[in-house]
Amino acid sequence: MKGAHTTCLHFTFSASCLVGAETDAGASVRFTVVDAPKPRPRVIFSGIQPTGIPHLGNYFGALVNWVKLQAEAGADDKLLFSVVGWHALTLPQDPRKLAAARSDMIALLLAVGIDPKRSVIFHQDHVQAHTELSWILGCLISVGRLQRMTTWKSRLAVARNANDESEIDDSVLNTGLLTYPVLQAADILAYKSTHVPVGDDQQQHIELARDIADAFNRAYSKKRRFFSLPDLMTTPSKRILSLTDPSAKMSKSAFDPKSRIELTHTAAEITTRIRGATTDSIQGITYDPVARPGTSNLLTILAACTGESAEACAARFASRDHGALKAAVTEAVEAALAQPRKEFTRLRAEQTYLADVAAEGAVKAREMADATLREVRKLTGLA
Amino acid sequence: MKGAHTTCLHFTFSASCLVGAETDAGASVRFTVVDAPKPRPRVIFSGIQPTGIPHLGNYFGALVNWVKLQAEAGADDKLLFSVVGWHALTLPQDPRKLAAARSDMIALLLAVGIDPKRSVIFHQDHVQAHTELSWILGCLISVGRLQRMTTWKSRLAVARNANDESEIDDSVLNTGLLTYPVLQAADILAYKSTHVPVGDDQQQHIELARDIADAFNRAYSKKRRFFSLPDLMTTPSKRILSLTDPSAKMSKSAFDPKSRIELTHTAAEITTRIRGATTDSIQGITYDPVARPGTSNLLTILAACTGESAEACAARFASRDHGALKAAVTEAVEAALAQPRKEFTRLRAEQTYLADVAAEGAVKAREMADATLREVRKLTGLA
Repeated sequence: MKGAHTTCLHFTFSASCLVGAETDAGASVRFTVVDAPKPRPRVIFSGIQPTGIPHLGNYFGALVNWVKLQAEAGADDKLLFSVVGWHALTLPQDPRKLAAARSDMIALLLAVGIDPKRSVIFHQDHVQAHTELSWILGCLISVGRLQRMTTWKSRLAVARNANDESEIDDSVLNTGLLTYPVLQAADILAYKSTHVPVGDDQQQHIELARDIADAFNRAYSKKRRFFSLPDLMTTPSKRILSLTDPSAKMSKSAFDPKSRIELTHTAAEITTRIRGATTDSIQGITYDPVARPGTSNLLTILAACTGESAEACAARFASRDHGALKAAVTEAVEAALAQPRKEFTRLRAEQTYLADVAAEGAVKAREMADATLREVRKLTGLA
Repeated sequence: MKGAHTTCLHFTFSASCLVGAETDAGASVRFTVVDAPKPRPRVIFSGIQPTGIPHLGNYFGALVNWVKLQAEAGADDKLLFSVVGWHALTLPQDPRKLAAARSDMIALLLAVGIDPKRSVIFHQDHVQAHTELSWILGCLISVGRLQRMTTWKSRLAVARNANDESEIDDSVLNTGLLTYPVLQAADILAYKSTHVPVGDDQQQHIELARDIADAFNRAYSKKRRFFSLPDLMTTPSKRILSLTDPSAKMSKSAFDPKSRIELTHTAAEITTRIRGATTDSIQGITYDPVARPGTSNLLTILAACTGESAEACAARFASRDHGALKAAVTEAVEAALAQPRKEFTRLRAEQTYLADVAAEGAVKAREMADATLREVRKLTGLA
């Protein structure tokens, strides 16, 4: 893959935002005629938790996007995709299941098309620099700032089947849930990452990572601005909803397994679940997420599989019925998942290879993170 | 030193406490006649922050005690003394001063008599396993439990010159201050330490470390009880008070430098400070900490230097005056500090040697901590 995409597209929302945030308000601006500057190489980092098999929503929301980023990245861009085992410990885990899920997640990244020769695929918990940096960064951010994050309470509310976040008493939460975003900031900053492709729900965390990077720069590196402020890299999100309750997102943790399709489901399982998907009794097919959420969700899935827009899909099925739509969706999902599923099944049997990929990724990741930490130690007085 | 103390004394408060805490209340007890069991080898761990030169109170309260422990330890006992740089970051530090203080603290440990061939002397921040374990342990302890610790608020109150802890708003404190005791627990447990010689003011932290060890055992190692619950190792404490305000402890951070004698003070400085020490106008010398705190503090210092009891010192000076007492205290302090001060000054000029000692200590410490972490990863499912 290397070198094949040297003239790739660069996403337009990156550099300008970054410079804007870093420029002092009153600084004078000089206009000079220059050649178009060479875009600064990007460091793209993202992570995924090893907690169960991803579903269609994860696949089209994150994994497909990562593969696309990998294909479009410039030759100088670096990409890192991490299986974040330490984050998984913030909720109770069965050690044996966690160990299996960690390995499965490496297999899945490979199966969907992340190329270990082009991207660094690694286990977060193989790179101790993350926790070292997390400690140092934690000394720069107030407890109150973390308490105001909404995610930690909602994660526990889900885990405990509470009706509402207000049922959750802050003080019983484990410390890892509170400090989770600090470790996430360390994950990102250990590689001096510039871009973080994650879901919209992570916006608050990326803002925190930027604030922490800025706090570090102010405390230890005023002139040089050691850390870039990483940018959230959102993509036109394929928001895929629950098959049985299209008022909610498709979710790993939803009680009803029929609400989701997982990447390892067989053709028969896909057929059954699409057939059982909630739609409506309106004649004909139209794309109307508000009035027809179930039908529109099927169109979104179809569009994600075929690369069309949901509206274009709807036009094709305008005069047909839900049966025809469901048949097409089933076929498209099966077509999209058949290859990754086959590859996943093959790779899952090759544990030695998976361990080798993870070990090689760890070597590359450590080299980068250790270089950052050597500088961080100097700047903070720890070396 | 090795092997010279194979038949040493073992402190009596260790094993029994430990077994008591670990035995289920309802377990049956079988009586059998056995040979006296060989005492289990101890792992003794303590840490000291690299924030300025220790004073007489630190010297007699901690350092002298560590040297004594080193002399009395059994051949199988392990001793580890760590300069805890990461902990220092919980309060703002000047990076250059911190770097110098880290090196100075290694020099001081050597100067007072910690033997790098017998004890492991190392920088905490050279052993990443501490922060890794700290993350894992943080997932096992509630935020509320940390918020109830008294130390974090009082440390900030001192740093900010607040009159009272109630003036400090929890939420503005940095996260490192809140999670400090979790890192401390990791410092201790990374070596499966059994004994922690620290001051009484650390009791709450050691209790937390025990609770965290217990929580880990319950979650991951019910039968085997992977971590021993570490014991606080208090010594008959030489509670040395401020020379200018004997209602307070001698303190590094007290505003008046005349209130303390630091280990590097010259004979002239010692003379001036003892001469200026607050006493009283009662005739004759008696040991009465309540009615005569200043006079009694001088007797405590004298006793700490000579190895006598404060009462015995008082008896010697019963019919003499404060001038005579102060002259004797000055002479005794100078006699106690002359050798460590000379050694410290000599070592301070040998930065390469100090770096070598720290590097060798780090190798030994890492070997132990990495072994613990390898097991921790297996137990938690991260390997």
